[in-house]
Amino acid sequence: MNRTLTALAAIALLAPIPAVSQTPPPASRVPSVEEIADRALVEDMLAWDFVEGITTEVGPRQAGTEDEARGRAWAVDWLKRNGFANVADEPFMMDTWVPGDIARARVTAPFAQDLAVLPLGNSAATPRGGLEAEVVFFRTVDELRAAPEGSLRGKIAYVSHQMRPAQDGSHYGFAGPVRWVGPGLAASKGAVGIVIKSVGTDHHRNPHTGSTSFPEGVKPIPAGALSLPDAENLERMFARAGDRPVRLRLEMNPRQIGRTQSGNVVGEIVGTNPLLPPVLVACHIDSWWNSPGAFDDGAGCAIVAAAARNVLYAGPPLRTIRVLMAGAEETGLWGSRAYSEAHLAEPIAVGIESDFGADRVWRFDSNFRESNPALHARIAGSVARFGVSGGTAVATGGADLNIVRDQKGALIDLRQDGTRYFDLHHTPDDTLDKIDLAQLRQNVAVWTQVVGILANEPNSILTGGPIPAAPPIMQGE
Amino acid sequence: MNRTLTALAAIALLAPIPAVSQTPPPASRVPSVEEIADRALVEDMLAWDFVEGITTEVGPRQAGTEDEARGRAWAVDWLKRNGFANVADEPFMMDTWVPGDIARARVTAPFAQDLAVLPLGNSAATPRGGLEAEVVFFRTVDELRAAPEGSLRGKIAYVSHQMRPAQDGSHYGFAGPVRWVGPGLAASKGAVGIVIKSVGTDHHRNPHTGSTSFPEGVKPIPAGALSLPDAENLERMFARAGDRPVRLRLEMNPRQIGRTQSGNVVGEIVGTNPLLPPVLVACHIDSWWNSPGAFDDGAGCAIVAAAARNVLYAGPPLRTIRVLMAGAEETGLWGSRAYSEAHLAEPIAVGIESDFGADRVWRFDSNFRESNPALHARIAGSVARFGVSGGTAVATGGADLNIVRDQKGALIDLRQDGTRYFDLHHTPDDTLDKIDLAQLRQNVAVWTQVVGILANEPNSILTGGPIPAAPPIMQGE
Repeated sequence: MNRTLTALAAIALLAPIPAVSQTPPPASRVPSVEEIADRALVEDMLAWDFVEGITTEVGPRQAGTEDEARGRAWAVDWLKRNGFANVADEPFMMDTWVPGDIARARVTAPFAQDLAVLPLGNSAATPRGGLEAEVVFFRTVDELRAAPEGSLRGKIAYVSHQMRPAQDGSHYGFAGPVRWVGPGLAASKGAVGIVIKSVGTDHHRNPHTGSTSFPEGVKPIPAGALSLPDAENLERMFARAGDRPVRLRLEMNPRQIGRTQSGNVVGEIVGTNPLLPPVLVACHIDSWWNSPGAFDDGAGCAIVAAAARNVLYAGPPLRTIRVLMAGAEETGLWGSRAYSEAHLAEPIAVGIESDFGADRVWRFDSNFRESNPALHARIAGSVARFGVSGGTAVATGGADLNIVRDQKGALIDLRQDGTRYFDLHHTPDDTLDKIDLAQLRQNVAVWTQVVGILANEPNSILTGGPIPAAPPIMQGE
Repeated sequence: MNRTLTALAAIALLAPIPAVSQTPPPASRVPSVEEIADRALVEDMLAWDFVEGITTEVGPRQAGTEDEARGRAWAVDWLKRNGFANVADEPFMMDTWVPGDIARARVTAPFAQDLAVLPLGNSAATPRGGLEAEVVFFRTVDELRAAPEGSLRGKIAYVSHQMRPAQDGSHYGFAGPVRWVGPGLAASKGAVGIVIKSVGTDHHRNPHTGSTSFPEGVKPIPAGALSLPDAENLERMFARAGDRPVRLRLEMNPRQIGRTQSGNVVGEIVGTNPLLPPVLVACHIDSWWNSPGAFDDGAGCAIVAAAARNVLYAGPPLRTIRVLMAGAEETGLWGSRAYSEAHLAEPIAVGIESDFGADRVWRFDSNFRESNPALHARIAGSVARFGVSGGTAVATGGADLNIVRDQKGALIDLRQDGTRYFDLHHTPDDTLDKIDLAQLRQNVAVWTQVVGILANEPNSILTGGPIPAAPPIMQGE
């Protein structure tokens, strides 16, 4: 690919600054990245346009399905309409599971009541007409782990947890294993099915789905998530049942449909120096079938795309900014792995991802605080005015940055407030109305500022040293 | 019925005060109503036991169905176990509509997306497989009313509103007509179906159902409620569609099943003077099929029953306290009307109802502020310590107090904070976890205080004058 030509083309695309502004810069000069970021804070509509558009015109877009394909086509069109170059939908193949159209759970004894349930990704189907069995109650996944071999034969396991909202989202790691490994554990001990308390922090009648997996050699069983009010109700039934068994009828018809196609949507703001490795800004385009994916991850794609586009208002950056809207993140990072496989030989300068909703960024971390302290400090200083502190954790990047980790490259984490995130995660409630425009704009402002610095940094992000004219990795395969 | 005998029986049922207390009264004497109310504020568990029990052991209980019958049987058992006398389930017949098991809506053009929908009570079914038509957008029910005759032929109407949370719940009257009369209006103008923005104030993917009706001579059409996020999404689709028609496929299979049996659950705390008309405390036992009915109206029944029972801890009151847990309120006040018909000749001293959730009481109104100012002032003064102001509105009583209105009797309204009420009303989200125990207890405290005063009032509630030895209405027509 001739990067000089595309860079020249990008200059031609340079659009005028929108007319509305609180403090317009002199018309005679191009605004600075700082000015553009400040304006994004109060008036950005580009990110809103993306997330409003994809939730309204597409909606749920489960990986590997026709719905995701519509979402990718929509994103390709949006990127083209908004001045991105080299826009493409890079296909890859994946194993695809679909949820079916039946998901029912009903307690049959000692009380009778329907419970709201949805299958977990990779759940097996029940027999047609459902299965009914006694439920065995585990308060934690560790209690399930401790159950004797064979002790669940013919039973349905129920596993609870006590997840709490946390600003840093860390209770996902605390409660997540209930979903990630609970079904495999239950199956390995002979259970005919499992229902879990949804891995979430809300109290609405919307189960939180998400992937589970079964160990090699363990036959998948039907695995469902109950909404939190339903899970709590089931627990109260246990308390009121005394010695009487609690029985559940469960019917679900998900299935594996084999290999289908997904894709990674990419687009670029082309830099003026084609020899400098690009800045990679990532998000994912897919959502679960039950969720319009406004927070997860329509907002993330909106933020990274708006920031990349905003930087161009200051004139073409030194480095290319590459947007990666990964396909099939939810169902196993298929897109992230496919992107790394396809592009491993093309070095990335630095990777950043947005995949934690639309609430405010409150902390900046990098993995070059020690190796390039000057740049780390400069970035931290640049976003302090937006309420973002400089952190001391080592950034590890998001799910769709496999390529940067595989290259052992530079990573930045712009950590968002996750207090609300697991109220909505993987549920039907993840709708546009949950997005607070002021907070979304703060994300765009912070991202514009950070990406603007990175894209105009001539030296190595990771070391601060000069970039070799032709990096060794580019001279290879 | 021999009221003297039941009064004596009630004395035998007098239970000891629960052991736990912050400020125990001297063991040597019976506590006052004031003391009992103060203790209810900090430690009541009786109301909680009712609402936790019925939501856990019964769940949704739609009028005229087997589920409601289970709910009534559960309430009968609870009243008997908790020391009520003359407990009965008084049957009546009603016209019953059931929702079916299919409720689907999908926008098919110019975008494609499923919308969360549920049928409104008395909705007709669509043809099997559904119907598809262009949608006509009305911002308000008045805009629909203004549409020319025949202008909706072959179309689906969509009607919006701008309901806001209001402490006094008054926006239900503002937005409610969209549901109450919108479907009838659309049908009369030739529409083949209607979907409305749910009459509610939340943003979760749970449609708010509720009754609608069709005028005499107008054939019912399929009528559904969209959740508020889905309604807003549909409106955004109109904005993005420009001149392109928005088309919707709608499939629902509700039906009328004819006459079935419901019933009114009654129970009494029997007073010592059988000649004094009783105090009637009312609520309703039924809920919509989609809702466990914690706020609407498990909490109301819990509050009135706990208050009635609490008064007995001060010793048998002068007057009988009659609890009416009406059947079939939601689907058209069948229970309230049946109760009035059956008991019109038995005078009621005063009626109070709890049917507005479980949040705090903040205002007291009566319809005897002018005719019996001393009693009105005494009641107002007695609940001031719980944060309840004396109001100047004329109480009109709740839906299940038809008998008192028919008798032109005394009424009290204990107005609750309704700010959250229409977040939950008629949705699956009306679950136990929404009840704030501290606020529920404040209700029980206020009710205990008020019912305790009324049940020990020897004179006419309405006039303050002496009660005739045998009121004329008791001497026959």
